[in-house]
Amino acid sequence: MSVQGPRRPTLAGVAERAGVSLKTASRVLNGEPNVAEATRERVREAATALGFRRNAVAADLARGGASRLLGFISGDIANPFYSALASGIERVARDNDMHLITTSCEEDPERERLLTEELLERRVGGLVVTPTTGDHARLAGELAAGTPVVFVDRPASGLEADTVVIDNRGGLRAAVRHLSDHGHREIAFVGDSPEVWTFRERRAAFVEAMEELGNPGAERWVRSGAHDAREARSLVTALLDGPEPPTAVLAENNRVTAGALRALGDAPGGQDVALVGFDDFDLADLLGVTVVSYDAVEMGRRAAELATTRHDPAAPPRTVTLETRLIPRGTGERRP
Amino acid sequence: MSVQGPRRPTLAGVAERAGVSLKTASRVLNGEPNVAEATRERVREAATALGFRRNAVAADLARGGASRLLGFISGDIANPFYSALASGIERVARDNDMHLITTSCEEDPERERLLTEELLERRVGGLVVTPTTGDHARLAGELAAGTPVVFVDRPASGLEADTVVIDNRGGLRAAVRHLSDHGHREIAFVGDSPEVWTFRERRAAFVEAMEELGNPGAERWVRSGAHDAREARSLVTALLDGPEPPTAVLAENNRVTAGALRALGDAPGGQDVALVGFDDFDLADLLGVTVVSYDAVEMGRRAAELATTRHDPAAPPRTVTLETRLIPRGTGERRP
Repeated sequence: MSVQGPRRPTLAGVAERAGVSLKTASRVLNGEPNVAEATRERVREAATALGFRRNAVAADLARGGASRLLGFISGDIANPFYSALASGIERVARDNDMHLITTSCEEDPERERLLTEELLERRVGGLVVTPTTGDHARLAGELAAGTPVVFVDRPASGLEADTVVIDNRGGLRAAVRHLSDHGHREIAFVGDSPEVWTFRERRAAFVEAMEELGNPGAERWVRSGAHDAREARSLVTALLDGPEPPTAVLAENNRVTAGALRALGDAPGGQDVALVGFDDFDLADLLGVTVVSYDAVEMGRRAAELATTRHDPAAPPRTVTLETRLIPRGTGERRP
Repeated sequence: MSVQGPRRPTLAGVAERAGVSLKTASRVLNGEPNVAEATRERVREAATALGFRRNAVAADLARGGASRLLGFISGDIANPFYSALASGIERVARDNDMHLITTSCEEDPERERLLTEELLERRVGGLVVTPTTGDHARLAGELAAGTPVVFVDRPASGLEADTVVIDNRGGLRAAVRHLSDHGHREIAFVGDSPEVWTFRERRAAFVEAMEELGNPGAERWVRSGAHDAREARSLVTALLDGPEPPTAVLAENNRVTAGALRALGDAPGGQDVALVGFDDFDLADLLGVTVVSYDAVEMGRRAAELATTRHDPAAPPRTVTLETRLIPRGTGERRP
């Protein structure tokens, strides 16, 4: 089922009421010159009386293709990480006299494709995307035609384009080193899905950093499949109940951290298990959770800056990598 | 500055390349019947070769005005309350084969007006709005013309329309009664701005409930102006440092609760002050915060249902009021 839209007054209706030609009515409503002021007035009155709303796309075209909308395709509408990104994008959009419109593909490649189409058809002036696993080569034509498309948090697949990411590997290595410095060797890494680029980056850095610290074969400490806090809680509980419980947990993202906190709260002795979470989150300071932090608002801001400063479609793609920072708050400093 | 959009291939270009009239090219690209298959094929090939993207608005009009977009104008892009609303709206949109696009007015009436215009000009199939203080009478024409506009969290001003709210007064009274039952009489009410409808509803209920419990003149316990957690923290700190510190704090929304938690953490003896927050929030269970809870996802769902089931513009406006529920978790059960 689809919602039935309104039956709107037409330009022809406006022209008829004003007693002018269709072309004249169109000229007036698009703000074109060389129409007598009296005629102009008549057309405007007719448009107001009929509630005629000029077609925004036609008007954009008349203005030479400028669009006041900046689109953002987020990955998960309910995750505060994306709200922070959107907030950064929004600030730059506003500085550029544009409005941000956001939509969410819920990590579904087919939905990402459909939503990209919907926004491009509505002639957004630029697009910021947190890409799913799908192929993005199909967007090459859009980029060449001049619509700026910027990827944020993860790079696109099959397409060279402007991209903003964080230093995932550096952040993860800092977390492993921190736990190792506090005496941990049995460190579990719990995360989302191997389909997600950031998970793969962070997992690879985990295994490498463990090896460098004289702790090879860390693959056996990796648990994946935690898309939400509930699933993360189950995975961490299973680890703690297992034959070889870890002395520290490294949570790959904010949802996993929330689940891990609950699992540690449930388990006997869970309050002695160390925890470092990737992604800072609201009230983490009050809960005393040690995190790998970065500025998600700044990430959004940088992505929007790339989208609003790509004046030459043929200019080489730019990549911005933002730093991370470990914030010790208590859970990461527990000793085994 | 505005971002320059792409210079796109035109319908005329497609028609020329395919060797057909503009009208025939338009018929083919809008999926209209009675064009020979060979001609159809030629036009499609030309459109693909030129990267011609059919105009979504024109296509919508050709389909009889149906639009696959449902718009949501939120109040504050960074507040998880709006993410939860959006998440509920999104589910219903998807069930109706629509996509949600969200934009945020940051509680600015002029921005709300502009964004409403932008979305309506792009022919959304429906609109859900968290209204600011501005007048909404200007939308009467849209409603009459058949675009469903639904207000959520607060009613519109100067316009009768479909609305979803929660039982603010009932929730606030339950909180006051709960604190009173635990022995409190010096209860401070800290909130946002008297310009916000929900603040006014909650404040009125606070004063009434206090009076009913034999505690008149509660206006002196009201503090307003806390738009964010930082401001809330200052207000609560000032109360605790003042000549007559309260034994309990009632935080009007999730941002105020976050600020109040920090203020109570800072103050000597702050951990003995009771706290009830309006709005549940992520990890409130781990922090042991007593809240007045309601289902914000359900609120969004109900609003989207109203937007997708308004088939007759002249049908009387509907109002849905959702219940609230007090969840005791620790902070609200402290005794003076």
